[in-house]
Amino acid sequence: MRIAVDAMGGDQAPTEIVLGVASAIEAGYVRPDDVILVGAKDKVAPLLEGNPVLRDIPLEHASQVVEMCDSPTGSLRTKPDSSIQVAVRLVQKEQAGAFVSAGNTGAVVACAASMLGRLPGVRRPGIAVTFPSLKGPVTILDVGANVHCKPHHLYQYGVMADIFSRDVLGIESPRVALLNIGAEEGKGNPLVRETRELFEQSDLNFVGNIEGNHLLSGECQVVVCEGFVGNVVLKVVEGVGAFVQQTLTNQVLSQPNPELAQSFRKITSKMDYAEYGGAPLLGVNGMVMIMHGRSDRRATANAMRASKQFLDAQVNQHIQRAIHANETDAAQLGDPHG
Amino acid sequence: MRIAVDAMGGDQAPTEIVLGVASAIEAGYVRPDDVILVGAKDKVAPLLEGNPVLRDIPLEHASQVVEMCDSPTGSLRTKPDSSIQVAVRLVQKEQAGAFVSAGNTGAVVACAASMLGRLPGVRRPGIAVTFPSLKGPVTILDVGANVHCKPHHLYQYGVMADIFSRDVLGIESPRVALLNIGAEEGKGNPLVRETRELFEQSDLNFVGNIEGNHLLSGECQVVVCEGFVGNVVLKVVEGVGAFVQQTLTNQVLSQPNPELAQSFRKITSKMDYAEYGGAPLLGVNGMVMIMHGRSDRRATANAMRASKQFLDAQVNQHIQRAIHANETDAAQLGDPHG
Repeated sequence: MRIAVDAMGGDQAPTEIVLGVASAIEAGYVRPDDVILVGAKDKVAPLLEGNPVLRDIPLEHASQVVEMCDSPTGSLRTKPDSSIQVAVRLVQKEQAGAFVSAGNTGAVVACAASMLGRLPGVRRPGIAVTFPSLKGPVTILDVGANVHCKPHHLYQYGVMADIFSRDVLGIESPRVALLNIGAEEGKGNPLVRETRELFEQSDLNFVGNIEGNHLLSGECQVVVCEGFVGNVVLKVVEGVGAFVQQTLTNQVLSQPNPELAQSFRKITSKMDYAEYGGAPLLGVNGMVMIMHGRSDRRATANAMRASKQFLDAQVNQHIQRAIHANETDAAQLGDPHG
Repeated sequence: MRIAVDAMGGDQAPTEIVLGVASAIEAGYVRPDDVILVGAKDKVAPLLEGNPVLRDIPLEHASQVVEMCDSPTGSLRTKPDSSIQVAVRLVQKEQAGAFVSAGNTGAVVACAASMLGRLPGVRRPGIAVTFPSLKGPVTILDVGANVHCKPHHLYQYGVMADIFSRDVLGIESPRVALLNIGAEEGKGNPLVRETRELFEQSDLNFVGNIEGNHLLSGECQVVVCEGFVGNVVLKVVEGVGAFVQQTLTNQVLSQPNPELAQSFRKITSKMDYAEYGGAPLLGVNGMVMIMHGRSDRRATANAMRASKQFLDAQVNQHIQRAIHANETDAAQLGDPHG
């Protein structure tokens, strides 16, 4: 099954996206016949011509582009021939097994959710972002697909991210935690208190609440939260990184120190979640990988690698099985239809 | 009016708290007769004896201490003679004008809210933390007093932080923003969408939504959010700082670079919200300043300075007036009793 790549999505599209595909092929992450590009022929075809790595990759034409400022649901209706919608249609018709995009995240989520639907038993899809922590990767979800979470949605996020963490990141028994504003039981709002009960009755390796300051300390490998909180967290991490970088850069400029500049580049690359390649939209009936809008060729290549791993490891089949197994118990845990 | 200082609260109490009071006096932030210490006589008195700066400061005995692990509301009942409760009682009886504590935050909030009550018209108190941004201080609230926010609570947080920002931080017309997961109108959950409407109809210098990545960029001086989100943000900022520090330190150790180490100390001190001294609990009928649990003498001295400024500037009187002025309009804005 091919990976459909949205060549038009993101600040640096189409050039960096297309060159990222070339990098992924050169690095052996994917083969040329694992890929199908989607985008405007007049913009993308010239980038493929004459490139020995790319010239045989099929290109599916899409005459429209969803801009970052377009309304996600509105664009579903107004731009039926967008690169996002054309690519998702390839997955829907099983002409592709996965879809990768650095375009308008809301539009990707809305399009995938409405056209592909959810895996059987899944209540809400969630976006999972993987950060590097002090002790290996930590996966946080949801970071923005669902801002009306119920306890059972959060519970299923834990189930899905556990599978992703095992299958794609190779973590044997991920420690699953609930993002909260205190470590003790009984802390937080009703949503997290009820979710905690569901986790405690599950088979997951649930380790309890985690506070924001321990997110990157590596104490656990899966952190569950609702989409509003997760999205804020994702962006605060990005913002603090930029703050430290800018503050350091100003000092470097006032007193040049190449070693310091280099040290800092290492840190920002460590903090960059593009390292783990895109954020999968877990729970949809198909593989959808969302990249940051500013993704360059390295981020694109890493997203290609992660998508291939996701497909090869049969993550969605495993999620479906885990959700089914858990649903059997869940009917007794309350909120079965939420 | 004296500032009642909880000598027993925090990881480094009583020594660092008491020495912080001495530093505040030496720096001219407060005078000796601005202060009253509260705590166990046998622990605190020896620190005062023989110290020329501290020896004349009155000490109010409190036989109990609320531990960090104690239940906030439970401790109200079980520890009536705690340093927190004794100090709040001094404010209640107008024997002190302000209360400063690095102890159990939940207990301080619960005790202050139940014993002092709210300023007339205020629906919910909120904790306001001030961070340094790339362009001066930014005040974020609520960071954890209220995890069941209604739009009108958030709206009042904006009104109160605006006053605090003007009176204590000296910002002429603070730009007020709402923390959200997108900059556009219509983004986010119902809470923030409804709050936005209230702000848009207000006299505040409301600049719209702000995303987490712009929190420390200095675009605005007041950021409003509900307590759960604010507390997560506060701790994520702390955690990312620690992550960067630890990653850098490991590199410094493998390849010693004193200049790098020093640069980094400057940055962490910039990111440290202790710089602005404690976080006021805005909206209670009395001045309550909450310090981080790990506060040292520098943080304590800064909290003393901020408390004195808060009292001298008559922040609570101004909040009361602003809330009253806004309530007159608010009755027409819906949710008047929420």
